[in-house]
Amino acid sequence: MKKLIAEFIGTLWLVLGGCGSAVLAAAYPELGIGFVGVAIAFGLTVLTMVYAIGHISGCHLNPAVSIGLWVGGRFDKKELLSYIAAQVLGGIAGAGILYLIASGKSGFEMGGFAANGYAEHSPGGYSMFAALVCEIVMTFMFLMIILGATHSKAPKGFAGLAIGLGLTLIHLISIPITNTSVNPARSTSQAFFVGDWAMGQLWLFWLAPIIGAILAGVIYKYMSPESDE
Amino acid sequence: MKKLIAEFIGTLWLVLGGCGSAVLAAAYPELGIGFVGVAIAFGLTVLTMVYAIGHISGCHLNPAVSIGLWVGGRFDKKELLSYIAAQVLGGIAGAGILYLIASGKSGFEMGGFAANGYAEHSPGGYSMFAALVCEIVMTFMFLMIILGATHSKAPKGFAGLAIGLGLTLIHLISIPITNTSVNPARSTSQAFFVGDWAMGQLWLFWLAPIIGAILAGVIYKYMSPESDE
Amino acid sequence: MKKLIAEFIGTLWLVLGGCGSAVLAAAYPELGIGFVGVAIAFGLTVLTMVYAIGHISGCHLNPAVSIGLWVGGRFDKKELLSYIAAQVLGGIAGAGILYLIASGKSGFEMGGFAANGYAEHSPGGYSMFAALVCEIVMTFMFLMIILGATHSKAPKGFAGLAIGLGLTLIHLISIPITNTSVNPARSTSQAFFVGDWAMGQLWLFWLAPIIGAILAGVIYKYMSPESDE
Amino acid sequence: MKKLIAEFIGTLWLVLGGCGSAVLAAAYPELGIGFVGVAIAFGLTVLTMVYAIGHISGCHLNPAVSIGLWVGGRFDKKELLSYIAAQVLGGIAGAGILYLIASGKSGFEMGGFAANGYAEHSPGGYSMFAALVCEIVMTFMFLMIILGATHSKAPKGFAGLAIGLGLTLIHLISIPITNTSVNPARSTSQAFFVGDWAMGQLWLFWLAPIIGAILAGVIYKYMSPESDE
Repeated sequence: MKKLIAEFIGTLWLVLGGCGSAVLAAAYPELGIGFVGVAIAFGLTVLTMVYAIGHISGCHLNPAVSIGLWVGGRFDKKELLSYIAAQVLGGIAGAGILYLIASGKSGFEMGGFAANGYAEHSPGGYSMFAALVCEIVMTFMFLMIILGATHSKAPKGFAGLAIGLGLTLIHLISIPITNTSVNPARSTSQAFFVGDWAMGQLWLFWLAPIIGAILAGVIYKYMSPESDE
Repeated sequence: MKKLIAEFIGTLWLVLGGCGSAVLAAAYPELGIGFVGVAIAFGLTVLTMVYAIGHISGCHLNPAVSIGLWVGGRFDKKELLSYIAAQVLGGIAGAGILYLIASGKSGFEMGGFAANGYAEHSPGGYSMFAALVCEIVMTFMFLMIILGATHSKAPKGFAGLAIGLGLTLIHLISIPITNTSVNPARSTSQAFFVGDWAMGQLWLFWLAPIIGAILAGVIYKYMSPESDE
Repeated sequence: MKKLIAEFIGTLWLVLGGCGSAVLAAAYPELGIGFVGVAIAFGLTVLTMVYAIGHISGCHLNPAVSIGLWVGGRFDKKELLSYIAAQVLGGIAGAGILYLIASGKSGFEMGGFAANGYAEHSPGGYSMFAALVCEIVMTFMFLMIILGATHSKAPKGFAGLAIGLGLTLIHLISIPITNTSVNPARSTSQAFFVGDWAMGQLWLFWLAPIIGAILAGVIYKYMSPESDE
Repeated sequence: MKKLIAEFIGTLWLVLGGCGSAVLAAAYPELGIGFVGVAIAFGLTVLTMVYAIGHISGCHLNPAVSIGLWVGGRFDKKELLSYIAAQVLGGIAGAGILYLIASGKSGFEMGGFAANGYAEHSPGGYSMFAALVCEIVMTFMFLMIILGATHSKAPKGFAGLAIGLGLTLIHLISIPITNTSVNPARSTSQAFFVGDWAMGQLWLFWLAPIIGAILAGVIYKYMSPESDE
């Protein structure tokens, strides 16, 4: 139960911090944080949570991560569904708090919130195929970083840095393509509030990250040195 | 006494570095550091001080942090008031040095300095209710990071990174709402020089961070693994 | 074989992440990440891979690094050619994925991709001589950081941070000169797709980094304390 | 002798990297790195060198740092003058390489290079008094960070992060005031090439940092816990 509360709060923070920085601060006139600031914010939500709750739940905060760790032999199947449920609910709670804050400005319009999208809803106008390739590859590499940095032969304690900053890197590359998901819980939390097209495109942001994560679990297992935690 | 000097100097640095970067460098023409730079600066004041004075005073630099650590069972009640006094005085000293430097430019006008505010004094025009929610939630998460990253089961030595970068993250999200406080000493230091409306709104920047900190102290205690430092 | 797969995937990530952020996100209207974002992205590709695959292959991702480590007495000559082949192929694969994503936008034109160049193909219009000096010195310092931070007397575990952030630093300085190479595999990957002038100027981005790396290997050996790993 | 070569190369890197990013990349049209990028670059020169050469020379790279460490009882007086000489010469060498690269652009004019200045040569037009206060306080805090983070009770290995990022923070605050020195070797290296007013104002950038460093050495000694390295 403590694990599930930790995953709930952690994913709440990922959505409130990452999507929150995008909605509230990215396009602020003159002084706004832009995509660089949003990329840093997403990464720091994970970095801070790894050190804060990593020793409680492992700090997945992402259904694709839980699935990839399970495929890679690092996570027990019987916890999988409850973790995913806690992540999705935590993400929606984070989006709810963000809505509460963001709507406290007169003239607020939700628009696309920080929802993920492709084709006409891609920030830079990228096709569904490009979005699919991008989300699969980015989640694949994210899981490679996670599986590698938490391996028993990697330097102790640095995994939180590598994983958090890895998520920053992924956003620096791919916000223009899909607004960057690599995390079905994050995508669901925004689509839940936006509805409409965001709900209609949500399938891609479950499918692609899960494909990428499974591939990484399989390939890393083959690549990794014998001794595994 | 060494502890109180450390808290005084550390909070001085938090205000001089964080508010200083906002007042002196954020809006510099063309090359200014914007909200991203200010967010990094606030975080780095804490990160640098954790490594420099953490082994002397624990490096709270913030009355809400001291209260949250006390509620969470990590800090002794009998030191609480002297810590808070050292933090408030250090913050005012930092603001004084900042005033001395900033006023060395012809045509300097203090305006709002880097004071925190809501409603008509919110940078982005957010309501008092949004400010209240935002400051409570941000301080709650700040304390969760602090309580988690300094827990005996968290990787040793990394707490300064997680906590400092956590404060950067909080600023990336919330500068447009309230100019970001989560720290009554920081808010008081600016209101002391601005007076007027900043003094009138100061109550919120004591109340909300303390509520958030107390909630975190209570909830983390319930969530955390047995062994506690 | 596991080592070569690791070098292949790592260099793929360096090109996809570093060049990808440049091609896809640097010049995005208003919110684009600029050279700061590209510099951070390049550095984080290396930082993340050091923690993910450093314990498998050593994480060179760069023919100049492999050569410098060999000259410095840290890498076995008989693995040199296979490492370089894996790096060049990985880089080209990364560029291929980037092309697949980038071309998913209607009206896409490859232009210079993220190729390195000098004289009329230097981003800031710097001469061939300036480019030569810059690439030699930057690679020299990159190898000094690598040789120093992985020395047995350096603090354990921090090498990934120092090396990754060192590459960020090198980009902060030198993108305007040559678009920053210090890595023949990265340069080759882009020239492979651009052809034309990028192929014609590619010699410099093999020659200069290798000269810099050899110099560093020789000088660091002289400077370093006795005990060597 | 190895120590002096290390200080020479390290200070060369500080000037080439820090001043180089300012001269070459800060004001690049549209994509330039601005003061944020320059601040990060300065910090990363020190961060990378601490891990690369810290175990050789201690990585001071700055006459004020050597003096502050001597006053604080951490550095032997008989090495002081040779360290300072190596730092000044290294800085000038770094400025020379920068000049070689920067002048490889047609229409190059040196202007102020990255020299430090006050009054009419302060980037933001700050008075000599403001510059004096700023440089004293910033160097004071820089030395507090150095003395604290290298103390035997501070977490092992993290000093390079705290010190490097501390220099980033100092630049985020104070570039508009003096172009930020806190380092007489860095200031001398630029004044050497600019001559003229930069030479005439150089006294302040030796005097103020040294005052700040001495104050920190004295005060930290009083504040620090018994056990000292």
